[in-house]
Amino acid sequence: MGNRVFNFNAGPCTLPLDVLKTVQAEFLDYKGTGMSIIESSHRAAEYDAVHTQCVALVKEVMGLDDSYTVLFLTGGASTQFAMIPMNFLGEGKVGAYVDTGTWASKAFKEASIIGKTVMAASSKDAAYKFIPKQADLKIPADATYLHITTNNTIKGTQYHYIPNPGSVPMIGDMSSDICSRTFDFRKFDMIYAGAQKNLGPAGVTLVILKQNMLDMCRDGNPVIFDYRTHAKENSLYNTPPCFAIYIMKLVFEWMKSQGGLPAIEEVNRKKKDAIYNMVDKYPDYYKGTAEKDSRSWMNLTFRLPSEDLEKKFISEAKAKGFIGLKGHRSVGGIRVSLYNALPLEGAQKLAQFMEDFKKAN
Amino acid sequence: MGNRVFNFNAGPCTLPLDVLKTVQAEFLDYKGTGMSIIESSHRAAEYDAVHTQCVALVKEVMGLDDSYTVLFLTGGASTQFAMIPMNFLGEGKVGAYVDTGTWASKAFKEASIIGKTVMAASSKDAAYKFIPKQADLKIPADATYLHITTNNTIKGTQYHYIPNPGSVPMIGDMSSDICSRTFDFRKFDMIYAGAQKNLGPAGVTLVILKQNMLDMCRDGNPVIFDYRTHAKENSLYNTPPCFAIYIMKLVFEWMKSQGGLPAIEEVNRKKKDAIYNMVDKYPDYYKGTAEKDSRSWMNLTFRLPSEDLEKKFISEAKAKGFIGLKGHRSVGGIRVSLYNALPLEGAQKLAQFMEDFKKAN
Repeated sequence: MGNRVFNFNAGPCTLPLDVLKTVQAEFLDYKGTGMSIIESSHRAAEYDAVHTQCVALVKEVMGLDDSYTVLFLTGGASTQFAMIPMNFLGEGKVGAYVDTGTWASKAFKEASIIGKTVMAASSKDAAYKFIPKQADLKIPADATYLHITTNNTIKGTQYHYIPNPGSVPMIGDMSSDICSRTFDFRKFDMIYAGAQKNLGPAGVTLVILKQNMLDMCRDGNPVIFDYRTHAKENSLYNTPPCFAIYIMKLVFEWMKSQGGLPAIEEVNRKKKDAIYNMVDKYPDYYKGTAEKDSRSWMNLTFRLPSEDLEKKFISEAKAKGFIGLKGHRSVGGIRVSLYNALPLEGAQKLAQFMEDFKKAN
Repeated sequence: MGNRVFNFNAGPCTLPLDVLKTVQAEFLDYKGTGMSIIESSHRAAEYDAVHTQCVALVKEVMGLDDSYTVLFLTGGASTQFAMIPMNFLGEGKVGAYVDTGTWASKAFKEASIIGKTVMAASSKDAAYKFIPKQADLKIPADATYLHITTNNTIKGTQYHYIPNPGSVPMIGDMSSDICSRTFDFRKFDMIYAGAQKNLGPAGVTLVILKQNMLDMCRDGNPVIFDYRTHAKENSLYNTPPCFAIYIMKLVFEWMKSQGGLPAIEEVNRKKKDAIYNMVDKYPDYYKGTAEKDSRSWMNLTFRLPSEDLEKKFISEAKAKGFIGLKGHRSVGGIRVSLYNALPLEGAQKLAQFMEDFKKAN
């Protein structure tokens, strides 16, 4: 086996090594069944146990009670961008959106094809450098929902407060920071996240709906795109992505073994501090693209004095086993993604590399 | 490791043991990258090679030229039931369906929510015991497409001819018999299949569209449900289910290593003959539910003289390592699924078990 790299990819990304080892060890014969879990019927007892345990772990780790329904869907957050307005924006309804970057903007655009939408706030004119504050949110009192994107993978920003939408139900796309910190998830009426950052591999989308949202689903949609179909059948209306759900279950078990979200938050705090300390130590060299109070703990974005230096940085880092540091192709620069499974050691060593690179260049 | 069972599940189901061993062997370090392929970015070179090779293998094994676009989507065949009418049934269009069982019927119902449909033929009144013949197909000359389900997993029937729809484009749901036999796929303008029978694990849907179908896609749909979105971006508009695609690629390589579809057909022929020979030898004991000329090679369904005997059959078979023989809960009885990866030895041993069971009971 080659040396394990530090994988800073923005997703799909690094997974906990202990989880990968478990998957490998039981891959050919799952708990004495004489078959792989990837070969199990989705109606078989061994898969049913995985599915049921995963639902329970999601609720336990996120602190959600039984007023929330946990679904395992597919198609990523991008499919939720369409399913949300399809289900909730009937005649006379309006969805309010906060535009904080590429994905938030895509969610808004997709909804605008399907129903009536309104922009509650946007930082677009400031190149998405900050997260709008509570006072800046213009949420119509009769909005059907408020949609926010809690972390912006491309722009490197993150909400550090939970908006108060009054009586308007709140939906959070938490694809890139779910379960990265202690967080009162109960402030949200709907939460969704593509798994491929903090929760598991690409191929499953975690969707969590409070009962009031299920009650709001409109009739007339294709059966497969109606949230009630999946809620009623416990995500087994049709064949779910069983193997991805199995790994998600192992990842939630790993989170618990680490001490749950408080412990994960502490490690994530040290990781982001290691990198931002370098940005703040050499602000004319490592130029952070996000305003300080909106900085993401998950995706840390900065520019170097020139594109040539950025290329050199990425190339030398790669040679030292730091993978996936190139900024999104739409914005360039450097992006350091520090998802839960990226070890503290990786962030610390990268910080040292940043120090050395600065001195040498 | 426990003894490997013979897994007759209807899907998800058995996968080639050689494929599983390869996945396990390279799971922690994919080709010296220092990470698992399940951790690779969908934009990274190592994943890109997998993706590109899989597209090429699909075309090679299925004998398709570049007039066909190969897509890897999610949401199973059930999502295609909705996407097909969303894309093709605009104002003044009509989709023609042949109803040959549970899934064909679901495809028809979903389309009827979205657009105008017509039933070209149905065997519903005969409990879906047969596949309608060419002469029985009433396809309106101005239909936008004809939709058929080439194999019926629950009812145990399969097309043994390829319908001629005249100038009407033909769409085939081939979820449960794709790549199980030599077949002129070029007679179809669109082909789709959930992977979890002959192609790989649950979590990826193979969708193949001829250019005329892409040209027919209507405007105004959510971006994520427009086939052109995925065709334009080579299934990388958003994060695809990379790991499931990686396994699908290995399964197509395995098909090639077996000699391609002609060789696979020959093994599948021997497998189904082993079981149907028992059904025909003891027709009053093993009562086949499908008419002879419509019998499926993939899902072989029969009843025993009593439900008690069926329970005993399933239970004793399980004790001997034959797993997944229970008929679908909607129809009962016995179902023997003989997908590509089920070894000939498994079918032969099950046939012997049927002989022994008949004599003892």
